[in-house]
Amino acid sequence: MKKLTLLTIASVIIFSCKTEQKEISKSPAKFSVEEKKDSTNIKHLFNTALTQGKSYEWLRDLTSNIGGRLSGSPEAAKAVIWGEKIMNEVGLDSVWLQPVMVPHWVRGEKEEANYTINGNKINVPICALGFSIATPTNGITAEVIEVKSLEEAKKLGDKAKGKIVFFNGAFDNTLIHTFKAYGGCVGQRFAGASVVGPFGAKGMIVRSMTNGINDYPHTGSMGYGDIAKEHQIPAAAISSRGAENLSKHLKNNPNLKFYFKQSCKTLPDAPSFNVVGEIKGSLNPDKIMVVGGHLDSWDLGDGAHDDGTGIVQSLEVAYLFKKNNIKPKNTIRIVFFMNEENGMKGATEYARLAKENGELHIGALESDAGGHTPRGFSIDANQKNVHLLQSWKKLLAPYGLHDIDKGGSGADIGPLKDDHVTLVGYRPDSQRYFDYHHTVTDTFDKVNKRELELGSASMASIIYLMDKYLYTNETLKP
Amino acid sequence: MKKLTLLTIASVIIFSCKTEQKEISKSPAKFSVEEKKDSTNIKHLFNTALTQGKSYEWLRDLTSNIGGRLSGSPEAAKAVIWGEKIMNEVGLDSVWLQPVMVPHWVRGEKEEANYTINGNKINVPICALGFSIATPTNGITAEVIEVKSLEEAKKLGDKAKGKIVFFNGAFDNTLIHTFKAYGGCVGQRFAGASVVGPFGAKGMIVRSMTNGINDYPHTGSMGYGDIAKEHQIPAAAISSRGAENLSKHLKNNPNLKFYFKQSCKTLPDAPSFNVVGEIKGSLNPDKIMVVGGHLDSWDLGDGAHDDGTGIVQSLEVAYLFKKNNIKPKNTIRIVFFMNEENGMKGATEYARLAKENGELHIGALESDAGGHTPRGFSIDANQKNVHLLQSWKKLLAPYGLHDIDKGGSGADIGPLKDDHVTLVGYRPDSQRYFDYHHTVTDTFDKVNKRELELGSASMASIIYLMDKYLYTNETLKP
Repeated sequence: MKKLTLLTIASVIIFSCKTEQKEISKSPAKFSVEEKKDSTNIKHLFNTALTQGKSYEWLRDLTSNIGGRLSGSPEAAKAVIWGEKIMNEVGLDSVWLQPVMVPHWVRGEKEEANYTINGNKINVPICALGFSIATPTNGITAEVIEVKSLEEAKKLGDKAKGKIVFFNGAFDNTLIHTFKAYGGCVGQRFAGASVVGPFGAKGMIVRSMTNGINDYPHTGSMGYGDIAKEHQIPAAAISSRGAENLSKHLKNNPNLKFYFKQSCKTLPDAPSFNVVGEIKGSLNPDKIMVVGGHLDSWDLGDGAHDDGTGIVQSLEVAYLFKKNNIKPKNTIRIVFFMNEENGMKGATEYARLAKENGELHIGALESDAGGHTPRGFSIDANQKNVHLLQSWKKLLAPYGLHDIDKGGSGADIGPLKDDHVTLVGYRPDSQRYFDYHHTVTDTFDKVNKRELELGSASMASIIYLMDKYLYTNETLKP
Repeated sequence: MKKLTLLTIASVIIFSCKTEQKEISKSPAKFSVEEKKDSTNIKHLFNTALTQGKSYEWLRDLTSNIGGRLSGSPEAAKAVIWGEKIMNEVGLDSVWLQPVMVPHWVRGEKEEANYTINGNKINVPICALGFSIATPTNGITAEVIEVKSLEEAKKLGDKAKGKIVFFNGAFDNTLIHTFKAYGGCVGQRFAGASVVGPFGAKGMIVRSMTNGINDYPHTGSMGYGDIAKEHQIPAAAISSRGAENLSKHLKNNPNLKFYFKQSCKTLPDAPSFNVVGEIKGSLNPDKIMVVGGHLDSWDLGDGAHDDGTGIVQSLEVAYLFKKNNIKPKNTIRIVFFMNEENGMKGATEYARLAKENGELHIGALESDAGGHTPRGFSIDANQKNVHLLQSWKKLLAPYGLHDIDKGGSGADIGPLKDDHVTLVGYRPDSQRYFDYHHTVTDTFDKVNKRELELGSASMASIIYLMDKYLYTNETLKP
């Protein structure tokens, strides 16, 4: 027993030893006096988020008590009231609602789909795509023609006539950043119907936008573009496993008949709101930095990672500033944008009003890539500010923020783009994101508390630095 | 509708744009000819893992069909047979079992614990610690004395007499690397009983080793050190929420009586095995590099993250080499170590035999920190090889491997330590690890396929580079 115990102690010691990793406080030696101050303030932001953070409980409340909140729905209306309430609880200097009319698409009854092989009816998990029209009441039954891309579909011509076109282009899983794989496929979902409708196709189905093989259909936005009303056809997503199986069966049974039924429809536009709150700048109250995500979500899940996490992290930036008594020079404005998922009306209206009111935005940060462990930021700005943000790497790397690259920012802050505005997208790890994206599994239990809080603190840290150092219109001039 | 659609298209374009991130193939410009070759080979390893990887299905098999596999248990014996089988399936040049006697502790019946406040009986989720003795058949009932650290416990003296000592030191959640927080607390679990037993305490309970507040007791190893048999007391872990509540109640009810019962015991040592397989080196077959994890696990969950992922990733390194027709110069030896969790007998025996047989180990890589998204490697080696491994950062960073630091390696490869042996610990992201560690939630569904496969490829990449470039005994000489 003694020998055993000694070995076990050795194991614990080795284990303890193996966990020796650099922690933040250890390497401020290479920092200038000002950088040391920044490093300390950033550490405080992280400490507060990890020990007194509010984001996780806010998210629990939003996802569990309201759930999915598609634009125009009663849940979206509840989310607006909820958003205003928690902004007030944080004690922002002012909170207000920005009215905006939004599209109002409803899913209707649960969709169904199947086909028959050797006398066995095979059900396929399916969901209508946002903005799709319904099928006739009895559904659509037709032969299937499979393509792997929009380009292939464009060449179908008459071959598509009377058929259901099946877009089965899969994610390129060799791409490390899963959003890149999404970017390579999502055109099928968005534009597939507008390409094959004019050929006389009866309907379109698309493989779900996800990395893995699973049983969940992933919804998302589609559009009919400029095509004539009579060419508009019902569009739906089937699960990736359903797509794999259908593709296999089509090889031996090219004439199998696929059936699907959906009763979705687009109602008249509905009134809604962006929820906005701000901490007034102590030195330059007229200079504004936006921090935001989107309040609406798809209806299938609870909109946890998309984009509940972005919402609560954005507000937590303000909370962390207040808790640490950081008084920003410029105005920090928290925005819960409405209708990112299907219309972008909230973002468009926010930018329009900003212009109409002559507001001076100097920066914006968006969190809309999930609530996973932090990886970095993507910067859409003039070269001087890109270099500036990249110079903060040594302050941010201890928190896992290594990827500070020039690139896109976010859909909701995109309309603020201007050469003197620094747009930043928060970039958490992307590996798990498309397991949940736009589907029934996007629920609270998929979010890890620490990962969420580390994200809030990461965002607060870059806003702290941007507020202090960003080159603005006057300082950009030579 | 048209306007809406255009906006939606804009949204998709912006989204696509925002996802623009550097992918691997883009920046080989700064690479030398040899680095370009390495970069290409590494990319192939990742592509293979992400499209033809086997690790996820191996892990599903191990965790679902065998489950938890504590040393000496029937499940551990099954895991040995399973390990030998999958090593043979991969087609290693040779596969063998290395006999080793291991401790055999069994949990017995489900533990129970409770206390009563204002007439209400409060049940507490509890589990015995590995190597603890049982309570008497009727359990233990005693007053509780709470401490927050081993240091505090050491000062208890007579105050502990007749009491249950409650170690309630919590993780320091401000530490970014959760293993560091674990390191700061685990001494309570491991040595608590040996400190307070000699004071006459009747039992010890410890707050579970986890970051969050949840309802799962987390087991783990403990030891009685050199204390006399009559001072050995039953030791158990209670859930973190149970600990929080107990602590609150003790403030108003310092004399409450806590009851717990467990029937665990240590049986005679049992025969078991390390499972070993290798690809023979093409140039230096006598120089060996180990890649491994541990096959045993705690009994409460299925040993998915701890350390099923390490096992399957280690074997996948060999699989990826074979699939890509990479013939290592040195011998790559895959080792599934037995008994890491409670005794380290497998690791000790492996190192003893290596010495006895005069084997020349030049490197070793261990994966025993979970199967989450890759972050880097920790290196325990001479300065020349530390610098060498750090010089590969630009090859590895595109895969999220930024943290390539000097530090510890792993418990199972630790006994191979020598100035000419380069020991490396694979370091995935640690944020979620202690949600599952040593508890019932450590199951297959917590592992993400891509994160697991990225880990395998990360490990294969560093082994590929180590095999090619590592300074060994002769090249280390001036």
